[in-house]
Amino acid sequence: MELKPTKPLSGFIELLPAAQRFVDFCATRMLDVLRTAGFSYLDLPAIERAEVLTDKDNWDEIETQMYLFQKGDTKMGLRYDGTVGLSRYVAGHLNDLVFPFRASQFSKRYRGERKQRGRYREFYQMDMDIMDINSLSTNYDVEIISVIQRTLNSVSEFIGDNCVLVGSRPFWDALFEYLGLSSDQKKEIFILIDKREKITEEEFNVWLADILKNERLENEIKSVFSNGYKYFENRAAGLDSAIQELNDFMKKLSEFGVKNAKIDLSITRGLAYYTGLVFEFKLSEYPELGTAAGGGRYANLVEKFSKTKIIGVGAAIGFSRIFVTLAESGKIDLSKFESGVDVAVLVMGDENLPYAMSVLNALRDAGVPSVAYLDTDKKFKNQIEYADKIMAKYSMIIGEDEVKNKQISVKNMLTGEQSQMPVVDAIKFVRGNA
Amino acid sequence: MELKPTKPLSGFIELLPAAQRFVDFCATRMLDVLRTAGFSYLDLPAIERAEVLTDKDNWDEIETQMYLFQKGDTKMGLRYDGTVGLSRYVAGHLNDLVFPFRASQFSKRYRGERKQRGRYREFYQMDMDIMDINSLSTNYDVEIISVIQRTLNSVSEFIGDNCVLVGSRPFWDALFEYLGLSSDQKKEIFILIDKREKITEEEFNVWLADILKNERLENEIKSVFSNGYKYFENRAAGLDSAIQELNDFMKKLSEFGVKNAKIDLSITRGLAYYTGLVFEFKLSEYPELGTAAGGGRYANLVEKFSKTKIIGVGAAIGFSRIFVTLAESGKIDLSKFESGVDVAVLVMGDENLPYAMSVLNALRDAGVPSVAYLDTDKKFKNQIEYADKIMAKYSMIIGEDEVKNKQISVKNMLTGEQSQMPVVDAIKFVRGNA
Repeated sequence: MELKPTKPLSGFIELLPAAQRFVDFCATRMLDVLRTAGFSYLDLPAIERAEVLTDKDNWDEIETQMYLFQKGDTKMGLRYDGTVGLSRYVAGHLNDLVFPFRASQFSKRYRGERKQRGRYREFYQMDMDIMDINSLSTNYDVEIISVIQRTLNSVSEFIGDNCVLVGSRPFWDALFEYLGLSSDQKKEIFILIDKREKITEEEFNVWLADILKNERLENEIKSVFSNGYKYFENRAAGLDSAIQELNDFMKKLSEFGVKNAKIDLSITRGLAYYTGLVFEFKLSEYPELGTAAGGGRYANLVEKFSKTKIIGVGAAIGFSRIFVTLAESGKIDLSKFESGVDVAVLVMGDENLPYAMSVLNALRDAGVPSVAYLDTDKKFKNQIEYADKIMAKYSMIIGEDEVKNKQISVKNMLTGEQSQMPVVDAIKFVRGNA
Repeated sequence: MELKPTKPLSGFIELLPAAQRFVDFCATRMLDVLRTAGFSYLDLPAIERAEVLTDKDNWDEIETQMYLFQKGDTKMGLRYDGTVGLSRYVAGHLNDLVFPFRASQFSKRYRGERKQRGRYREFYQMDMDIMDINSLSTNYDVEIISVIQRTLNSVSEFIGDNCVLVGSRPFWDALFEYLGLSSDQKKEIFILIDKREKITEEEFNVWLADILKNERLENEIKSVFSNGYKYFENRAAGLDSAIQELNDFMKKLSEFGVKNAKIDLSITRGLAYYTGLVFEFKLSEYPELGTAAGGGRYANLVEKFSKTKIIGVGAAIGFSRIFVTLAESGKIDLSKFESGVDVAVLVMGDENLPYAMSVLNALRDAGVPSVAYLDTDKKFKNQIEYADKIMAKYSMIIGEDEVKNKQISVKNMLTGEQSQMPVVDAIKFVRGNA
């Protein structure tokens, strides 16, 4: 019989236990920050109707990016982000939710893209969104950035410091308006700006000239990147108000305690659905990871599902991209995650099993992560080897003498020290030292 | 523009925030029991190669049960249980894992079945498995049952008491052997036993007669259900040893502290891959939920992936079937899950926002789940209504006076009592009373 493959599909993640413990540790910390910030965790379906996932109907092209399939007459597919499902959910529960509604998500998403370093086909993102009906103060945009920073800071011992770059879609809209660009030119320039970090300056200039065919306009666009927004002050009311909004926003970020924030107008979040300020987080120590988190304000996401006007601000942290990449990079010290167990109970002979089981239950009742080696036929040498391999901090050895004297032998697996004590004391001892 | 549907696909679960908090609370408690019992949590891909998921190639029929699709030349599908992926993973990491290897999983699975009450197309199961190379003491079967009971007991305030029924595949094998049945008859009787709870006694008898066409044999099979195993003692060595094994096992269950366990030979776990003892948990207060958890010993699961002989014992808890069904049933008091927040910070006027933000940050630093109403233009009435609707225990009101005096007004939202105090005291107060 031919054996089946044991590797997962390319682009799919599976970790060894220690790396998984590290990733889970970080997720738990970060989700606790979101819970403390009053976000309601939602667990939405991974499968959505195809019409919910996309407006497009060029299936052949979409299928290269998404996982789509058909059951009976229904076309459906796996979600590629958290926003589509959330918009549908909010529209369907307008009367059940309290607004402003604060939602967090932490779920797997699926993209058909070709595997590259740090790009997965199945990956976790951690989302937070705040949505309200008809209007939403930009103070919530400030808060979302504050919360992302708190979330990343909660695991800074592993990922180091972070910084946030703030861009403005309204600034670009006002600039395009001021320069008198056509709607086609606007779209193409947004695509170009989004590609800017991936191409050379010369390639950028050639492409820009190809779109605008006007040296003055080309220089104006380029000056955003060289001179910043100040160069555009006092030229047009729309530009001034976009600049004013950005400056006010940065002041509030600082008042909310956000550190390392700066304006970067080249941040546009691509062609996505954003309509206001946008932002991206980077990790100072790991620039190679690219964008650690990104988001912004959106006004039209829910309109496909409801006539009620919903405004939102939201962001996604590229969880797998950060933590799986780091776990696999060797740059993180995973040693404190190597063991999942504090105590290994070793049992010498089946006749001592009832006593050993009561000890194991008492350890577990006390919340001490513990296992027993229950193959009682095995020699002491095999059992202690097992305790060593699983990196238990202590082993508790139970044989005839221990059962007779109602004592157990506690061995410190690091130092080799061993001493006998009553069960109750042994549990206190390992709890205190674990 | 026509609005898109807001309901999820039929058979897919999405919960309102309070029900979701209840389900998450139970999952967290139960996963903590598994962690304390030394199981390594694994998060495996939801998508597997089709050849990993099934040996069959009658795709039309399989597709009605599974979610299958194709990307490029690769046929793949969504996992329908946790066992297939785990077998692949263990086979692929024989040299990276310590044996006996203890794995837990808590993940979504997908089945194409028709929606019934409590049957979902996307649902969570919580798995635990212990696997070893070449041999595995049945003491681990005892432990798995103990751990499932601990897991269910950790949320007994919601699901009440549980009991476990233990069956034996070797008993049936020995009985079929003793009765001299053909291999076709054996298979058909196993299918029939699996259906036994869903059909009438008369239907059972007719079906059985149809398989055996021999009244003596039919009566022998029926006597398993009426007289139990004792009727078969001292008839054949194979039967005696299967009965002995069962009796020894029940004794050990009791020694390991397992409550409410009894032998029930009608438990066979269908046609699944089990080769030894099998078991099912039921919830005493909720018989309508059917099997709450089930599992058993398997010897051949990994052989499709590796030539190394792996023996395992494992079980799955029907997590969504239990907790989503109960959350939606109205039988559970969800009131303690209605609110996710202890404090709502209410801000009177944008000029008081910096102070309010510092209070909010201090609350969150102290681990107090808290939100602020950041639309500072809104009237006090709207803001206090919001605090009421999200069921915050306290609101902290911040206006001009509070900022000037570095005090905040803390209002108990239940009693209406209100008092002013310095921020530090306010945080201590809500922490102490939350």
